[in-house]
Amino acid sequence: MLKSFTIPEEDMVVVQHEDLRELVTEIFQKLQVPFDQAKIGADVLVSADLRGIDSHGVSNQLRVYVDEYNQGGINPKPNFRIIRETPATANVDSDAGLGLITTPKAMEIAIDKANKTGLGMVTIHNGKHLGMASYHSMMALDHDMIGVCMSSTRATVLPTFGSEPRLGTNPIAFAAPARHEPPFVLDMATSAVASNKFDLAKRLGIDVEAGWIADKDGTPIMSPAPLPETYHGLPLGGTRELGSHKGYGLGAMVDILCGLLSGNNSGMIAAAGGVRNYSHMVAAYKVDAFAPVEQFKDMMDEFLRTLRNTPPAPGHERVLYPGLPEFEVEEVRKVKGIPLHQEVIDWLRNISGELGIQYSLS
Amino acid sequence: MLKSFTIPEEDMVVVQHEDLRELVTEIFQKLQVPFDQAKIGADVLVSADLRGIDSHGVSNQLRVYVDEYNQGGINPKPNFRIIRETPATANVDSDAGLGLITTPKAMEIAIDKANKTGLGMVTIHNGKHLGMASYHSMMALDHDMIGVCMSSTRATVLPTFGSEPRLGTNPIAFAAPARHEPPFVLDMATSAVASNKFDLAKRLGIDVEAGWIADKDGTPIMSPAPLPETYHGLPLGGTRELGSHKGYGLGAMVDILCGLLSGNNSGMIAAAGGVRNYSHMVAAYKVDAFAPVEQFKDMMDEFLRTLRNTPPAPGHERVLYPGLPEFEVEEVRKVKGIPLHQEVIDWLRNISGELGIQYSLS
Repeated sequence: MLKSFTIPEEDMVVVQHEDLRELVTEIFQKLQVPFDQAKIGADVLVSADLRGIDSHGVSNQLRVYVDEYNQGGINPKPNFRIIRETPATANVDSDAGLGLITTPKAMEIAIDKANKTGLGMVTIHNGKHLGMASYHSMMALDHDMIGVCMSSTRATVLPTFGSEPRLGTNPIAFAAPARHEPPFVLDMATSAVASNKFDLAKRLGIDVEAGWIADKDGTPIMSPAPLPETYHGLPLGGTRELGSHKGYGLGAMVDILCGLLSGNNSGMIAAAGGVRNYSHMVAAYKVDAFAPVEQFKDMMDEFLRTLRNTPPAPGHERVLYPGLPEFEVEEVRKVKGIPLHQEVIDWLRNISGELGIQYSLS
Repeated sequence: MLKSFTIPEEDMVVVQHEDLRELVTEIFQKLQVPFDQAKIGADVLVSADLRGIDSHGVSNQLRVYVDEYNQGGINPKPNFRIIRETPATANVDSDAGLGLITTPKAMEIAIDKANKTGLGMVTIHNGKHLGMASYHSMMALDHDMIGVCMSSTRATVLPTFGSEPRLGTNPIAFAAPARHEPPFVLDMATSAVASNKFDLAKRLGIDVEAGWIADKDGTPIMSPAPLPETYHGLPLGGTRELGSHKGYGLGAMVDILCGLLSGNNSGMIAAAGGVRNYSHMVAAYKVDAFAPVEQFKDMMDEFLRTLRNTPPAPGHERVLYPGLPEFEVEEVRKVKGIPLHQEVIDWLRNISGELGIQYSLS
């Protein structure tokens, strides 16, 4: 998380993750989600808060989901069913269920298949937002598997040289287990930044960085500037010279694996059809299908240790690896609690009142 | 290919791909590679030239391979064998065979497994350079499959905030079939640029672009400059602000899937052990295991057509998609021939003389 997005001290309320988890579960239940599924949805959201991925946690996302449940856009009791299947693959119709809740179910199928054939891959169509993508990929870790999760979202990002958005922020998550080191967990938008960074920048009145957006005509804005009225997201890389064709290519790859392979269609074409539906892909690779697990974990430890022990460049304190800072934040927040903005606390109190929940968070 | 790397008119010699293919096959044969394998190696090299990926074609790469064969670093008659296997996976010891030749063999195994289980994934350890990664991923296309190829190479690229190289240029290739549109073929280094761009820049005496390299201390050089004496490659993104942690994360992901999962170890740790050996991963996903092939191809056509018909931003002629410019170059070069630098022609004539080959190219 960029420092500029830190909550000001005077607006910060700290809550314990168990309490937040319980409240969010109750909120989902009041929206007609069955208890066991509500618990999973709460776990995905609060895990994001615990790991410091506040953009995908309770503060930013829960209200969006509540609105969409209330408007009938998300199905609280979806008929989740496999519509095509082979020994290593499945394609699931998630019946407009919230991706936070349906994706773990799909990942369980992928893990089960990987246990049998070495690999498992499940596409999900007719879906909704899946929250922090790394949650789903990390489900593989306890099974000594590598986990993958991708998601195709509505088009907000320009293709290189283009002036109209064609791709979503289309994240890629990839998790691999280690022995003593915190696991390797990559979770990245294939756009320059996740789009709720723009909302945060607007809310906090701060400039967006160079290479994050293009103006309304499609020209990349390459110095820090206030968020303009009309703008478009840029692919990772920003400009062609800095490699935006690679971010664009990765975003399109995600759309092919999620949108097209699941039969949902690409994010942009699905949206043009009037439906803002998401599609996803999860996969599990069994380590033991390739190499002895213990050897792999030893190698992972050495690999990750060597990365984080790299001598830093001038002006930098240390070198990290994907998943390390999130692990460290989680260690702190599990004990000290999760910082929320007072405005979020107010919203939680209000929505609890509206839904008839006994509010006891703070 | 960047325009600045175009061969000057007065130094350009155009050769027909069939003739080049024949000569390269003969060269491999003289290096003790069996005929059927020599033909595959030549096909991978000349395909790169045909598609305009000159950095991975005959001009840049063949002399490197010839030297390494002559020094005993590459095994011309490797004992390629599967050392671990499940219904969907395999791990192959390629016995220091040239990756150009051993990787297609591994991809055939992946395709065969995908035909049976829906997915196939093969890791390759004890390997050598595989040339243009997209060649191997594109083998899936004729089987109505999606193809993937990754490769872990020796460490030349800094981790974000680091001052010592820890990762290779670690490319990712991904190919998906369409019906009427040229196929989608992404082939990207996870570093800012492929490292032989530096050799080309040095040879042609031109500046490297902003965000391509860091100075010897690890500080990214963010404006065009001549190549310094000592430098390091940067991950895709260049700086943290522009997303280099994502390029770094993708590069590490490739090393985990190729180096660690194959048991070869990461590129940096293998090299520290004194061995400059590569490791690779190929995968095939059967489209029909997820959705009807004809539906997928229709969606691909619409997707790719919509991408390339995106109105361009000011100053740009049109929007491309990965694989489209390479396809267009191939259409031209198949007919008009492949442009080579006179210096390359001289080298080909010399090496033919050395190896006792009747030279008849031009």
